[in-house]
Amino acid sequence: MKRHLISAADLSRDDALLILDTADELAKISDRSIKKLPTLRGRTVVNLFFEDSTRTRISFEAAAKRLSADVINFSAKGSSVSKGESLKDTALTLEAMGADAVVIRHSASGAPHRLAGWVRGSVVNAGDGTHEHPTQALLDAFTMRRRLGPLDGRKVTIVGDVLHSRVARSNVLLLSTLGAEVTLVAPPTLLPVNVGSWPCEVSYDLDAMLPKSDVVMMLRVQRERMNAAFFPTEREYSRRYGLDRDRVARMHDDAIVMHPGPMNRGMEIAAEVADSPRSTIVEQVANGVTTRMAVLYLLLGGADLGGEIRQ
Amino acid sequence: MKRHLISAADLSRDDALLILDTADELAKISDRSIKKLPTLRGRTVVNLFFEDSTRTRISFEAAAKRLSADVINFSAKGSSVSKGESLKDTALTLEAMGADAVVIRHSASGAPHRLAGWVRGSVVNAGDGTHEHPTQALLDAFTMRRRLGPLDGRKVTIVGDVLHSRVARSNVLLLSTLGAEVTLVAPPTLLPVNVGSWPCEVSYDLDAMLPKSDVVMMLRVQRERMNAAFFPTEREYSRRYGLDRDRVARMHDDAIVMHPGPMNRGMEIAAEVADSPRSTIVEQVANGVTTRMAVLYLLLGGADLGGEIRQ
Amino acid sequence: MKRHLISAADLSRDDALLILDTADELAKISDRSIKKLPTLRGRTVVNLFFEDSTRTRISFEAAAKRLSADVINFSAKGSSVSKGESLKDTALTLEAMGADAVVIRHSASGAPHRLAGWVRGSVVNAGDGTHEHPTQALLDAFTMRRRLGPLDGRKVTIVGDVLHSRVARSNVLLLSTLGAEVTLVAPPTLLPVNVGSWPCEVSYDLDAMLPKSDVVMMLRVQRERMNAAFFPTEREYSRRYGLDRDRVARMHDDAIVMHPGPMNRGMEIAAEVADSPRSTIVEQVANGVTTRMAVLYLLLGGADLGGEIRQ
Repeated sequence: MKRHLISAADLSRDDALLILDTADELAKISDRSIKKLPTLRGRTVVNLFFEDSTRTRISFEAAAKRLSADVINFSAKGSSVSKGESLKDTALTLEAMGADAVVIRHSASGAPHRLAGWVRGSVVNAGDGTHEHPTQALLDAFTMRRRLGPLDGRKVTIVGDVLHSRVARSNVLLLSTLGAEVTLVAPPTLLPVNVGSWPCEVSYDLDAMLPKSDVVMMLRVQRERMNAAFFPTEREYSRRYGLDRDRVARMHDDAIVMHPGPMNRGMEIAAEVADSPRSTIVEQVANGVTTRMAVLYLLLGGADLGGEIRQ
Repeated sequence: MKRHLISAADLSRDDALLILDTADELAKISDRSIKKLPTLRGRTVVNLFFEDSTRTRISFEAAAKRLSADVINFSAKGSSVSKGESLKDTALTLEAMGADAVVIRHSASGAPHRLAGWVRGSVVNAGDGTHEHPTQALLDAFTMRRRLGPLDGRKVTIVGDVLHSRVARSNVLLLSTLGAEVTLVAPPTLLPVNVGSWPCEVSYDLDAMLPKSDVVMMLRVQRERMNAAFFPTEREYSRRYGLDRDRVARMHDDAIVMHPGPMNRGMEIAAEVADSPRSTIVEQVANGVTTRMAVLYLLLGGADLGGEIRQ
Repeated sequence: MKRHLISAADLSRDDALLILDTADELAKISDRSIKKLPTLRGRTVVNLFFEDSTRTRISFEAAAKRLSADVINFSAKGSSVSKGESLKDTALTLEAMGADAVVIRHSASGAPHRLAGWVRGSVVNAGDGTHEHPTQALLDAFTMRRRLGPLDGRKVTIVGDVLHSRVARSNVLLLSTLGAEVTLVAPPTLLPVNVGSWPCEVSYDLDAMLPKSDVVMMLRVQRERMNAAFFPTEREYSRRYGLDRDRVARMHDDAIVMHPGPMNRGMEIAAEVADSPRSTIVEQVANGVTTRMAVLYLLLGGADLGGEIRQ
C-alpha cells in the first residue's frame, strides 16, 4: 500500500481488500468488547480541517483514539492561515511537530496531494473540494460487503447531485476497482461534463433502475446549488429524484439504501425510508470509525493485529 | 440508579446520597495525590455542546479524563447541524460511533430527554434551556454538605432571576429530596408562574430571610433580561437583591454564600463577599469536577472504587 | 528555577542553560524513536488562549502530550469571558479544577503575571500583547546553539517591526543573558521609545550588519501596521528591510537565517531564502516542541529524566 490515501484511484484491488479485511478484523475485536487497542501508542494524528466537518473529524478522532494515538485537532478557522500562512508553511509546521499522520479536509481539490509532497508522515484525504473522499467510499464498500457479501457484479445506483459530490466520485472509482457495476442517476445539469470517461453508466430514469439495483445510494442535496440546476422547487426535485416508500417498493427484497449523511429528510430521502431496515445509514457511521481505524492502522504500520487479538 | 441523568427530579434520595458519597470517596482519593484513576479506560465520553459553556465543558472533560476515559468535544456551532441535520441524526451518529456517555448542553428544554430515547449510552444533562442543570445541583449539595453536614432541615435561600434559571430549578428539586427547606427570593416578574407547585417557599424580602438562612445562593443576573423585568437600572437591582457586606453581616456565623458562576461582581454579589471565607464559589468549581466524576463513574458502571483506593 | 515562566528576564543564566540542556536530553530521547514519556502522567495542562494562535497552542499541546499529561484546551472566544467573567474568576476556575500548569496567550501585556498571582499551578506565558513570548526566545536560543554551539559572543541581528514584537523583546533579554551580542535593525518608527535601555545595539543599516552577523532573525511584518509606519508600499519595506538572495550573499558561510513564523514570503523574506539550507525555520518549529517539553518538565517537576532515558 502507498504511504498516503489521497484518492480512491490510488487503491489497487488488493489494497482495497486489505483495508476491508482489516476493518473486518477490527470489528471482530470490537464485538468482543475490546474498545481500545495499544497499536498506535505514542503516534500523533493531526486533524487538519480547513472546512467544518464535525462528523468526519469526530470519526477520525474516535478511530485514532481507539488505536491509542494522540490526536491534535487543528481547525484552520482563525488560525495563522488567516494571517496569510500558506498551506506549505502549515505543512512544514506539522511535519516539524512530528505528526505521523495528517488527516486533511480542504475546500480546494488537490490540497491533500500537495500536502503529501511536503511531509514525511502519511496524508489521509478527508474530503477535498468536489474531488474525492476516499474513506467515505471505503466505509460504504465495507457496509455493502457486510450486508451483501463480495461486491463483484453487484449493481450500485448512485442518485443525485453527482457534479458536486466527492462521495460519488470516490465511490465510482473504488466500486469499479472492486468489481461492482455502478450507474449514476442525476439531472443532466448535475453531472460532470467528463462523466463519459468515468468507469460507470449513466441513466436519467430512477424508476427504471430501482428493480435492478442491489444498492441505491442517495446523495445529499446541496440546497444552495439547486437554483443553478434550474429546479423550480424542492418538491420538483423530490418528485423526480427523491427516494420515498413507493419507490423503495420497487427494489428487490435484499437491496439496501445508503446515504453518506447528513440527510435532508423529506427531500432526497423520506424519513420512513431513512429509518427502515433496508437503510444502512446508522451502520455507515459506525463502519466509518472501523474503516478509518483500518486505514490509520495500515498507513502507520501498527503492530501486528494478531497480537492485539490474542491479548 | 437510572441510566441517564436528565433531571434532578429523577434522583431518589438514595440515588442522590450515593452520588454524594461516591464524590466523597473520590475527593479522598484526590487528597492522597492520586490524580488519575484507570476506571473508565477505553470508554468514550462525548461533550455535545449546542451552546457555548466553556466552564461546564471543561469540568466534564476534566472529570472524564481523571477517570481515564477518552473525551471527544463536539461543538455544534459550524457543525453539520448548521447544514440542517436533526438532533436525531446527530444522536444516531454518536450512538454509531460508540459513545458510552453523551454530555449535552442545549438551548431547548427537553433536548436531553429526547436524546436519551435515541442512544444506548448514558445521557447527562449539562443544562437545557431554562429547564434543568442537575449536576450543578449535585455539586451545590455536595458543597453544602461538606461545609454544613447533612442537609435535612437546612434552610437554603436562592436569590435572583429564578424564572430563567435552570440552576434554581434543579436545586429546588434536589434540595427538597435531600430534606432541605428552600425559599426563593426574586422580583415577582422573575418568578415562574407555576412556582406555587414547586417544593419550596417564596419571599420578596431578602433582608428578612438572611438571618434564618444556612445557605444564601445568589443567581447570575442575565443583564439582557433585566429590561424585561422592568428594572430601571442595575443599581436598583443591586440595591434590592444584591448581596453586599451589610447584608452578609445579618447572616449567622456559619452560614455560607454560594454562586454558580460566572459572577457579575458588584451586581448580584459584591466582590468582597465573593472573596470572603463564607463564599464557597471556588470550592463549587473544584467540587464540580469531583461530583461529575461520581456521576460518570456511577452511570458508566466503572470498576469497583474500593479497588482503586487500594491500588 | 521559579515556579512560573512569565518573562525571559526572569531566567538566570543557569536557569536558561538548564532548560536548553534538558531540551538537548529530550531531543536525544526523541532521536531514539521514544515518542512518549510517562513523566507527567496524571498532570493536567490547560491551554488558556484569549487570542487565536493555533501554531503555539498545538506546539504546547504536542509537548504536554508527549510527556503524557492530560491537555484541556480553553479558547476564550465565546466562553464565559464574553459573559463578563473576569480573568480572576477564570483563574480561580482553573485553579479549582486542579490545573497543574496554565499556558496563557492574552492580548494584554501583563495578563500572565496577574494570573500567576491567583493560581497555585505553574503559569507559562505563551505571548502577552506586545510584551513577551519567552518560550519563543528559548526555542530560538536552542536552535542557534544546535547550529552554532555556545552563544557567548555570537552576533545576532534582529530585523523588522521590533515595536510590536514580543518575540524581539524576549529574544533580546534571553540572548543577552546567554552572552550573545544583539543588534536591532528597524525603521525608526518601528522601534520602542525606550530601546536605549534594552541590552542591545540599534542600527538602521541592514546591509552593514549582514557580514558581521552569525544569526539574522527576520520578524514578521504585521501588514495592518505598515501604514502607521509611513511606508508607502510593501515593496518599499521589502527593498529596505527584506532578506533576499543578494543580501544573504553578504552573510558569512556559517551564518543562519531565522524567522518565528508565520512568514510573509516575498515580503520580509524571499521564498528562496526561507527554503535555503541557512534557514532554520522548520527546525525552529520542531525545536519549539522540544523546548516546551523541557519547560513543562522542569516547571512541573517531572520524574528524573535519567530514569526515562534508561527505560
